[in-house]
Amino acid sequence: MNLFDDSAAKAARDRQDQLTKPQGSLGRLEDLAVFMAGWQGRGRPRIDRAQALVFAGNHGVVAQGITPFPPEVTAAMVANFEAGGAAVNQLCRAAGADLSVVALDLDRPTADFTQGPAMTAPEVSDAMARGVDAVDADADILILGEMGIGNSTIAAALAATCFGGRAEDWVGPGTGSVGDQLAAKMRVVTEGLALHAPTDTAGTLAAFGGREQAAICGAIRRARDLRIPVILDGFICCAAASVLLRDDPDALAHCLIGHESAEPGHRRLIAALGMPPILSLDMRLGEGSGAALALNILRAALACHDGMATFAEAGIG
Amino acid sequence: MNLFDDSAAKAARDRQDQLTKPQGSLGRLEDLAVFMAGWQGRGRPRIDRAQALVFAGNHGVVAQGITPFPPEVTAAMVANFEAGGAAVNQLCRAAGADLSVVALDLDRPTADFTQGPAMTAPEVSDAMARGVDAVDADADILILGEMGIGNSTIAAALAATCFGGRAEDWVGPGTGSVGDQLAAKMRVVTEGLALHAPTDTAGTLAAFGGREQAAICGAIRRARDLRIPVILDGFICCAAASVLLRDDPDALAHCLIGHESAEPGHRRLIAALGMPPILSLDMRLGEGSGAALALNILRAALACHDGMATFAEAGIG
Repeated sequence: MNLFDDSAAKAARDRQDQLTKPQGSLGRLEDLAVFMAGWQGRGRPRIDRAQALVFAGNHGVVAQGITPFPPEVTAAMVANFEAGGAAVNQLCRAAGADLSVVALDLDRPTADFTQGPAMTAPEVSDAMARGVDAVDADADILILGEMGIGNSTIAAALAATCFGGRAEDWVGPGTGSVGDQLAAKMRVVTEGLALHAPTDTAGTLAAFGGREQAAICGAIRRARDLRIPVILDGFICCAAASVLLRDDPDALAHCLIGHESAEPGHRRLIAALGMPPILSLDMRLGEGSGAALALNILRAALACHDGMATFAEAGIG
Repeated sequence: MNLFDDSAAKAARDRQDQLTKPQGSLGRLEDLAVFMAGWQGRGRPRIDRAQALVFAGNHGVVAQGITPFPPEVTAAMVANFEAGGAAVNQLCRAAGADLSVVALDLDRPTADFTQGPAMTAPEVSDAMARGVDAVDADADILILGEMGIGNSTIAAALAATCFGGRAEDWVGPGTGSVGDQLAAKMRVVTEGLALHAPTDTAGTLAAFGGREQAAICGAIRRARDLRIPVILDGFICCAAASVLLRDDPDALAHCLIGHESAEPGHRRLIAALGMPPILSLDMRLGEGSGAALALNILRAALACHDGMATFAEAGIG
């Protein structure tokens, strides 16, 4: 089944070419309108309901001293999301997105991936199902984000597994790992890559974790089935999404990358995915913050697409 | 007089460092909040009123066959702005900016700058005054844009005069000049640079024009006096703004560049100005479209700055 509606996309492109501007002069705003038209299956795409989902999880590998923050901060930040005090709360409000936070067994971290698989197969399935279930079928766009102390280490391992390269190619400071912590990140990823050689989506999630990554995969799959376009966030969210490509090279066709993070691995990951980010603002927070911010651009693109006069309407040319 | 309030900026930076995120992790959003704090003179900057001004003018040099559109399109697009049908209308509405269009003697184009000065000194003063008068003293932010068939040629001449280089370094397709038209753009800019060697702001505007460029200069000066931060648009708007630097190297300290245009000269101009753009979305429309779009990012930056919990408030750390 062709989920992308070529005729709706063509109708949108034809409309763009008739709007009162030199053809192509709105650049990516035009492409975004056409993308939305194809996935929503209507020549005049709309965003009446924007859903933002932030998945949170904890990771056993954190015990190896890889981060400056203790794992308790994951739950504390979830409480902050629920109280409305985090960056993603403000960014969702500013962009008109309804935010939900899904905390995934925070008191039960995944196993340390340097010692064995991070998750069992049923744990992977359960976490993916949490992502599937969280998607609102009525959403016109889905914003995805994550929170989880240690999860930039998980992301580096997933990216290296999916796209090759050594730990050094993918490991970066994350929330602020330097010195011994950064060296420990490199070491655990190297050890994990030596221990595990998964080839499919579920196996890769089982090997390295974590729950929030599996939930992101589930949500992306569910959104695709529903033809809901998705805005991915930074390094950690994109690394999780990449795991889906192991089962289906077309799994991310309905996804946009909201921003290029300052986390060094993200640039490499964006290149590997071949998906140009919408924004590049030196952000490195996660939480879905860059994706929520990019929603403003998407809304503006649709506002132009829908509201501009054609040359004929304006009596020009 | 120090227009930038260092203590307000410092209060904003201190607040950023206490918000519930790793320090610096909001990247440019943090810098934008601090910038706004300094110019508005308050640690919690606000955008209650955003004003967008689009200045329109016509240019005698258009008679030399430099553009694919006749000069009548300037007035037609002004009518489109007034009817709400242009891109900038939708983008201002989406970003919450009040748009005004100022048409500057459209039936009286400036003189052809290859034959002599484009404007007399009184014409420059009058056009600058139109810009000064258009600024709303109650605005919290000012978005600037322009419309004028032929004005990417004016921009190339102004940029070359301000920053050196040959016509080829600054001339690009604009709204779609190719072949003979592009060659004519190169030729007229080369001729203009050979004919005129102005050194100050008013003299440079007199040499090359145009009225919308002079009005932009007037509006930027007025905004600075009022400590209203400004978002500049693309190549043409930034080239106009650059002329102010001839009288005062600090004239643009209160300005941001909203986006990097696809017009090739803009990248060079951004480098010369040393001001990083907020967005880069392959847009090349003018009208203030990129500046209006960037207002969304600025609003989001202030929403984070104002609405986020501190670590102490969230009971973290």
